[in-house]
Amino acid sequence: MAEETTSIIIMGATGDLTQKRLLPELFNLRRKGRLPEGTNIVGYARSEYSDDAFRERTWQSAQASEELNVEQREWEDFARSIYYVRGSVDSLEHLAGLERRLIELEGTKRLANRLFYLSIAPNLYLAAVKNLGSSGLAQEKRGWCRAVVEKPFGRDLTSAKELNQVVRQVFEEHQVFRIDHYLGKETVQNLLVFRFANAVFEPLWNRDHVDNVQITVAERIPVGDRGAYYDGTGVMRDMVQNHLLQLLTIVAMDAPSAADAESLRDKKVEVLKSIRRWSASEFVKNAVRGQYVGYLDERGVAPDSMTDTYAAMRLYVDNPRWSGVPFYLRSGKSMASKISEITVQFKESPYMKTSIDPHQDTRSNVLSLCIQPDEGMHLRMEAKVPDQGMMMQPVDMEFHYATAFKDHAIPEAYERLLQDALEGDARLFIRNDHIEEAWRVVDPLLKAWEDPSAAQLHTYDTGTWGPEAGDALLAEYGHRWLQLCGGDH
Amino acid sequence: MAEETTSIIIMGATGDLTQKRLLPELFNLRRKGRLPEGTNIVGYARSEYSDDAFRERTWQSAQASEELNVEQREWEDFARSIYYVRGSVDSLEHLAGLERRLIELEGTKRLANRLFYLSIAPNLYLAAVKNLGSSGLAQEKRGWCRAVVEKPFGRDLTSAKELNQVVRQVFEEHQVFRIDHYLGKETVQNLLVFRFANAVFEPLWNRDHVDNVQITVAERIPVGDRGAYYDGTGVMRDMVQNHLLQLLTIVAMDAPSAADAESLRDKKVEVLKSIRRWSASEFVKNAVRGQYVGYLDERGVAPDSMTDTYAAMRLYVDNPRWSGVPFYLRSGKSMASKISEITVQFKESPYMKTSIDPHQDTRSNVLSLCIQPDEGMHLRMEAKVPDQGMMMQPVDMEFHYATAFKDHAIPEAYERLLQDALEGDARLFIRNDHIEEAWRVVDPLLKAWEDPSAAQLHTYDTGTWGPEAGDALLAEYGHRWLQLCGGDH
Repeated sequence: MAEETTSIIIMGATGDLTQKRLLPELFNLRRKGRLPEGTNIVGYARSEYSDDAFRERTWQSAQASEELNVEQREWEDFARSIYYVRGSVDSLEHLAGLERRLIELEGTKRLANRLFYLSIAPNLYLAAVKNLGSSGLAQEKRGWCRAVVEKPFGRDLTSAKELNQVVRQVFEEHQVFRIDHYLGKETVQNLLVFRFANAVFEPLWNRDHVDNVQITVAERIPVGDRGAYYDGTGVMRDMVQNHLLQLLTIVAMDAPSAADAESLRDKKVEVLKSIRRWSASEFVKNAVRGQYVGYLDERGVAPDSMTDTYAAMRLYVDNPRWSGVPFYLRSGKSMASKISEITVQFKESPYMKTSIDPHQDTRSNVLSLCIQPDEGMHLRMEAKVPDQGMMMQPVDMEFHYATAFKDHAIPEAYERLLQDALEGDARLFIRNDHIEEAWRVVDPLLKAWEDPSAAQLHTYDTGTWGPEAGDALLAEYGHRWLQLCGGDH
Repeated sequence: MAEETTSIIIMGATGDLTQKRLLPELFNLRRKGRLPEGTNIVGYARSEYSDDAFRERTWQSAQASEELNVEQREWEDFARSIYYVRGSVDSLEHLAGLERRLIELEGTKRLANRLFYLSIAPNLYLAAVKNLGSSGLAQEKRGWCRAVVEKPFGRDLTSAKELNQVVRQVFEEHQVFRIDHYLGKETVQNLLVFRFANAVFEPLWNRDHVDNVQITVAERIPVGDRGAYYDGTGVMRDMVQNHLLQLLTIVAMDAPSAADAESLRDKKVEVLKSIRRWSASEFVKNAVRGQYVGYLDERGVAPDSMTDTYAAMRLYVDNPRWSGVPFYLRSGKSMASKISEITVQFKESPYMKTSIDPHQDTRSNVLSLCIQPDEGMHLRMEAKVPDQGMMMQPVDMEFHYATAFKDHAIPEAYERLLQDALEGDARLFIRNDHIEEAWRVVDPLLKAWEDPSAAQLHTYDTGTWGPEAGDALLAEYGHRWLQLCGGDH
């Protein structure tokens, strides 16, 4: 290991993500002894800083963090491995300066690895990637060279393809680590364990037994100071195309044929490819867009904005496993509570009427996977009410992460993903074809909604579960949104 | 209803069961308004009591009860419906006196129902049943006439057949309610709800998914003052032939074709008929008998007694659903804790090695149905340990009756069964063919064990889980006894 050094180059080093997430998570990794020995962190941005001034700034940010509990001495010790290079991703000259500094830091080590983290504004992506190519920085020379890319990956299929094409010209696919931080969440990773390390769920996980699947990612906060960005984006691009479709692929995927990244990602992409391609008019009928009352008054939002702050839709995965099973997705801002939950509603028991009581209604079992908060699982089932003949009542069999793993703090998503990227483990990162297939799924709806008259924009009050039309979408098929996680069920 | 009266005749009215169980449970039923209006309770036994003296005695017993919380005034109000007739079941003359008293109590009511509860010593059964026939008391005249019969139902197949034959000569099968109080337990009834009102368990409930099934009914107490009776009985007759085989039939049965008593009992008997008929020598190899150290010093126990206070065995249900799946049964006295538990151990996940991690060992899922104490369910499954790569750890998804049904007191088993017998609901009572098939299952082993040299009698210390040979029985096939219920797992 003494023969090896690793440089983590963060482009956009003065931004919020770097200061509030990346550097604290790198600190945590180092504290746990998980950063490779001899790792240097090089901040790159346009502001003027000396190494020491930048280190001081990182300490200010660390101090302001609520999650991080660190002494100044400990941070300073960590910060000695932080360096700063002033420059723009637009400028080949600046990038040449960066490379000189890297070579200097790498010294005579036999192996010198480089991880470029693109924590920059989306409009700079294309230029940054191109220039990493032109400058030669993207080449693997004395060690591996990887790039971590943050979302958004385009804003529709066309722009995503364009971005992927540029990335492909500069990097080999194995060098690229596209982050969806949802995949770094413990409870999302646990979905894989839940499904494939256990034998009792997979036999039920198909159209024979499942009635419908629901994925909810709700936020309580409004857009706040992100109005200008958000108004050009909307919830479909901000949440559905990435996070919700990620969850859908993990829930619906077939078992990978091997435990490596490609086998896993192959199966996820297969799910996306199997999602029914609605025409624009079909999709509009199977979706609901909403906007919370008060959104138009947010700073940075156009006064006549039609941007979706809520979206709900019905999708079908047209493969042998899921044929005919509706997948309901919904996401929104300013909603009743912050919750990410997957519920699998099973079909009703075919035995109830004959075996127990022909006069009692049957209710279906529901399995709920709680991603946040109240991380865990609920299995809703029927139990006999004591002392009331054969009367039944739904009860929950429950598992709570916080109870079962009292002694294990749940790390932040970025910590795990940074570690994986350093180790070259791409399982929790998104492959280029996944990005494109996900856009292909949502593109018809995005295009349709560009026409204001194509679909009604339903309003909803802050603190609700969205417009009534979102409930009506499920009621059409006799379903309703289920919530088992959290307190208020 | 004013045209109807019901008499509950308890034969053996001065015994412990009547005083400690039957009368308090009848009181509870009345308190809940579940006794038919105009119900009279007639105690019948050999001692001399006036109605009032017998009522006073019932109050003494009620006061001594830990479970019953009753004011004297309330009990006296209840006791006004209690009468006493002195007599022996041996004597037709006495029984004629009983009938005269019944006719007197029934007065001019158009319908007069009679429920005979045989709470008498086993050696009096045959005479009692015969004389109920000879005296004409067993006939349905002005209403229904039913007989509730307590275990033991014989002490082997031959004696059970003999008893059944006598019962059949006197009563129609629909008049006979054979009690196994285990079936009155809420958690045992819930097994039916669990299996057939829910859709998610039944698809897993077969040889494709289940590795083995274990049924444990352990008692902590030694034989105590029951030594004389117990020494002629043993745990096979006292527990296994009835309670454990009951649990086995409910766990293993197919879905009844209708919700009536016969459809349910048909399916239970089918299970018993499918249990592999071991030859004596095969059965001895698939069973372990044990006796706790100190048993020979108990009062009433023969100094050279070979009576089994512990038994464990491997059974197979040779039908399409369960072919090849071992069913392990064990029961004993003086064991580590009082527990009744059914565990279903599933096969290992076939996806684990390919989909998650080829280097991690797979552990199997276990579903545990806790009958007592800590009534509820545990589903043991694998979950990802936070912040430890893809490391897994078994966790329990849990349901506890006491939490889910805080406001519902769990009634005593007899309360439910008495109510069912009054209502003519035979679902939770044992049909004659069930009794005989259950004896047919255990008879070869009982016969074999009569020969002291046929099988070793293993000793075990009080407060343990029985002899090591009981563990070895499972180890032969790579299994081990599982305990998920209760505190110490």
